[in-house]
Parts: sequence; C-alpha cells; structure tokens
Amino acid sequence: MTRPPEVRIYEVGPRDGLQNEPGVVPAARKIELVGRLVGAGLRAIEVTSFVSPRWIPALADADEVAAGVPRPPGVRLGALVPNLAGWERFRAAGLHVAAVFLSASETHNRKNVNASVAETLERFRPVIDAARAAGVSVRAYVSTVCGCPYEGAVAPGAVVKLARELVDRGADEISLGDTIGVGRPGQVRELVRAVAGAVPLQRVALHLHDTFGRALANVQAGYEEGVRTFDASLGGLGGCPYAPGASGNVATEDVVDLFEGAGVGTGVDLAALVDTGAWMEREVLGRRLPGRVLRASLGAREREEARP
Amino acid sequence: MTRPPEVRIYEVGPRDGLQNEPGVVPAARKIELVGRLVGAGLRAIEVTSFVSPRWIPALADADEVAAGVPRPPGVRLGALVPNLAGWERFRAAGLHVAAVFLSASETHNRKNVNASVAETLERFRPVIDAARAAGVSVRAYVSTVCGCPYEGAVAPGAVVKLARELVDRGADEISLGDTIGVGRPGQVRELVRAVAGAVPLQRVALHLHDTFGRALANVQAGYEEGVRTFDASLGGLGGCPYAPGASGNVATEDVVDLFEGAGVGTGVDLAALVDTGAWMEREVLGRRLPGRVLRASLGAREREEARP
Repeated sequence: MTRPPEVRIYEVGPRDGLQNEPGVVPAARKIELVGRLVGAGLRAIEVTSFVSPRWIPALADADEVAAGVPRPPGVRLGALVPNLAGWERFRAAGLHVAAVFLSASETHNRKNVNASVAETLERFRPVIDAARAAGVSVRAYVSTVCGCPYEGAVAPGAVVKLARELVDRGADEISLGDTIGVGRPGQVRELVRAVAGAVPLQRVALHLHDTFGRALANVQAGYEEGVRTFDASLGGLGGCPYAPGASGNVATEDVVDLFEGAGVGTGVDLAALVDTGAWMEREVLGRRLPGRVLRASLGAREREEARP
Repeated sequence: MTRPPEVRIYEVGPRDGLQNEPGVVPAARKIELVGRLVGAGLRAIEVTSFVSPRWIPALADADEVAAGVPRPPGVRLGALVPNLAGWERFRAAGLHVAAVFLSASETHNRKNVNASVAETLERFRPVIDAARAAGVSVRAYVSTVCGCPYEGAVAPGAVVKLARELVDRGADEISLGDTIGVGRPGQVRELVRAVAGAVPLQRVALHLHDTFGRALANVQAGYEEGVRTFDASLGGLGGCPYAPGASGNVATEDVVDLFEGAGVGTGVDLAALVDTGAWMEREVLGRRLPGRVLRASLGAREREEARP
C-alpha cells in the first residue's frame, strides 16, 4: 500500500485571522500565538502585514510582532507586503516569505486596494524584484477566484492569466483565494485543472473560506486534483472586510483532521492545535471560534469535566 | 452539454431534528413546519417517530402530528417504526414510508435500542412484513457506518452485510448514517463502492452529520460515487442523544445550495427554505440554527435591514 502524498498547511491565522478582530489583540499575544503554532508543528506561518496602519489598524504593530516571533530552523514566516514602503519594513524584520495580493475581479481589487488589477501588478513589480534580489520567496494571493461579491462570476481564464503573469514576474507561489466562500467542488476542480495548464501545481496553494460550509469539500477536490498546499487559520479565525458576507478561513484543525484521518501527513499535532485554539478563545478573544473540530473537541472536554 | 443527474433530498428535520429539542415544540408547529417544507419543494419528509413516549418525550405527539400534516400528491411522508405497536400507529396514520433503524455497531445498537443487532433485525421482521403487505415502502436506517462512539472503527463489511440483509428482508431503501460525523470523503467513497456491490445505489441514501464540518465533502464524495438520495435537516437541526459529541444533520439548505449551484437539480426552492429556517429560529426555537447557508443568508438580510 502506498502512502498518499503529504500536504503543507500555510497558517494565516495571525495575519488574515486577526486583521479584522474588533478588539485589538496585543502584540505580545500575537507573538505567543505564533510560538504556539510553531509548537504544534506548523512550518509556514503568515505572521503579519506591512500595510499602512491607516488601512488596517489591527496590524499597526506589524514591526513589533515581526521582530518578536520565534524563528526556529525549518519554519518559514511570511507577511503581506503591499508596496515598497512595506518591503522596507519586511526587509528590516528579516522574514522569509513576502506576500503580494490582488484580485481576479476588477471591482473587488479596486475596493480592496483602490487601483485596477493592471496598476496593482505594476505596483508589485519593484516589490517582487527587490524580494528576489534579496533571496526572499514571493507568495502572490489572487483573491475572488470562485466569484466576486460585486461582479458575481469570475472567469477561470482571468485567474489563469493572472497566475501565469505573476509567476512570469517572479512569484514563487500562487495562492488562489475563494475570498467569499462561494466555490463548489466541481468548480474548484475545473479551476485547478485550468491553472495547472499554466503554472506547476507545486507552486499553487488553495486559500478557501467556509462561508457556506463548503471549504472542506473544496479542499478535498483540490487535493484530488493535485494541490498540496492549503491555507488555513486557527479555529477558522478571520474574514475579509471588503467582501460582504465573507466568513472566516477554513479552520486549520479541520484541514489537519481531514487529511490526517485519511492517512495524509500534515506534520501538525492536532491536539496541540486544539489546545492553542482553546487558549485563543479563553485568554485572547473571549469568544468562541467557528472551527468544527475545535468546537467538537472542546465540547467533549467540557462534558468530561462536567462528569460527576 | 449533458445535464448532471438530479438528486433527491430526504428531509428529516421534523423527526430527527426535533426529537432532541430540549423545549417541547407544539404539534401545531411541527405540522406547520411540514407544510412549509412541502411548500419549499421537498417531496420526501420524515415527519415523526412512533416510538414509545417513554423513550423520546419530544415525540409523544406523533399521532397528532401524523394526522395533521398536509398530504399533497407527490409528497411522501415517513415515520420511524420501532416495533409492531409502532406499526399499528403508523398504519392508523396512513403515512407512506415506514422506517426501521439499527446500528452497524453492536455497542451503539445496544445503547440505542437495548438489543443486539441480530435481535433488532428479528424485531423488525414482522414490521417489514406488515408494511410490505400493506403496500407501504420500507426505509432502513443503518447508523454508525463510518465509526462508533463506543467501538471506534466500523468495518465496511459489517455495513455491507447488514444492508444486504435488510434488502433481502424487504427494505426498499437503505439510509447509511454517519451518526457521529467522523466520516471522510475517501472513506465514504470506499463504503459506497462496497455497498454498491451488494445493493443497487438507487436504493441507497446517505445520512451525514456535520460534527467535524465534513458533511458536504462527504455528500460530494457520495454523489461522485453514484448516490442520488441524501438525508438532510432544515438548518442542520438535530443530533443523536445516544452518541456523545454528535452534532446535527447536514443542513438541507447547504445540500441544496451545493447541488443547485453545480447545476444538479434538487426540486427545492432555496429561498423558501431559508425563509422556513428563519421562521423556525424566530417563531419556534428562539435560537440560531447551525446551517451555514442559513447563517450566511440571514446575516446578509440583517445587513440589508441595517442599511441607512
């Protein structure tokens, strides 16, 4: 019996997850979160975003967080880099993966970064060039790949073209984002097949949101089509402030459990991840997170504790 | 372009969904619920259970509910029938589908009905015979097909043997239940393939719970393997009182949206279903239901209403 291929989880909770938190999470907590995620076995973590604090106040502590996170060997830490000013901050922090981001839909891109897709690509050119010159990996997020909250359907061809263009310009990895969670398994399969014709799938990640409960079905479809990297956030933290109705990312525990239970290695310790989720709920956020495995696990623990 | 095959939704909310509700839902509300589900296009609905009120007090009104539900042509109404006493009540009510139930796991079966699997099969023999003699369809639920809360793994062979046996004894349809939601897509595929070797898939339904968020991934896997009937409950109502940690059934809206969005007809009007879910939350239960499409839809409505 051959062992199925392993997958890589790209944890985006500290950045994508916390950027929309209404209460400000202190930098020390964010640093502790990254430490706990590393302790649970995650080896690729997006820790913050070097956007202007005027854009996203919750990320105004980016420099402090980036300076404070643990950096054990083998762990790759990333951050969003929207422009050259952000690149200078990223470089000073000395992280490993610089992430640029744009949308497959013109309207969503304009609402998100106030520029056309073509203008955004041009804006990223010097960032990508600088990152490559500095030996830093470049991750490019392409959002709204399964649909746009403003335009509706998004043509797979537009996604393929953008992915190809980003790779041509120097991106090492393309993360395809179903920002509003509207994708369906058949659609994800078709999209992955189309992208695979332009970009090797080793360089493609799927970034799925669970708005309609279909994220895991879409993860499974992507895996069956050959994708091996999946973005996820602890407990399903997060959402997109520019996409009405968007809920959180697919929960890391749910993805880990889906794969590990099927014998597909993730390198992540599910119990440690659940402990981290419990800590996040109790000590940091003071509310419950939506992750299903987290909810089921903590529910079982509560019943154990309540036993006479 | 060929249109993909249609699927049939077997709505279990009024029975499986409401049997564990802590507050008693009045019979008139249950009757209204069935009417609303029929209005939304559902054509197969399990309306109650003729178990002893000592077992499940929430279903003590079974006779009243069964007598009161609307019966438009083309709609098939079912109820659980645990024994001959239940069969007499079912017969008096004149419903269309008598459902028997047992578990693929000895321990779960014993906790559920206080008898071995073999004893339970024998107990159902006169019920099945009486139903067939009366021209009533027989549905057989086989639970814990993907795992048991007490025994852990359940061998697909045990499920296949039981399904075959039930069909041999006269069951028209076998509903395979992942009672505690532990199934994974690959496992569901293997199980369906194994069962298909013993029972034609036209006679097989999948009854999936969403404990770990994998229900839709499993629905998709089952569909791709040829299953065309899926049990679901409005808003994800329900759970299993005898299975620790089990959460509700997969939500009907989530299943309908998964399929309709992929061009697979269900015959169900999603908007009417969401209206029914909103009514259920506000007028009947006074709490939110877990269904993802319901939550996303009602969240969008609330934002519309809050708009200046």
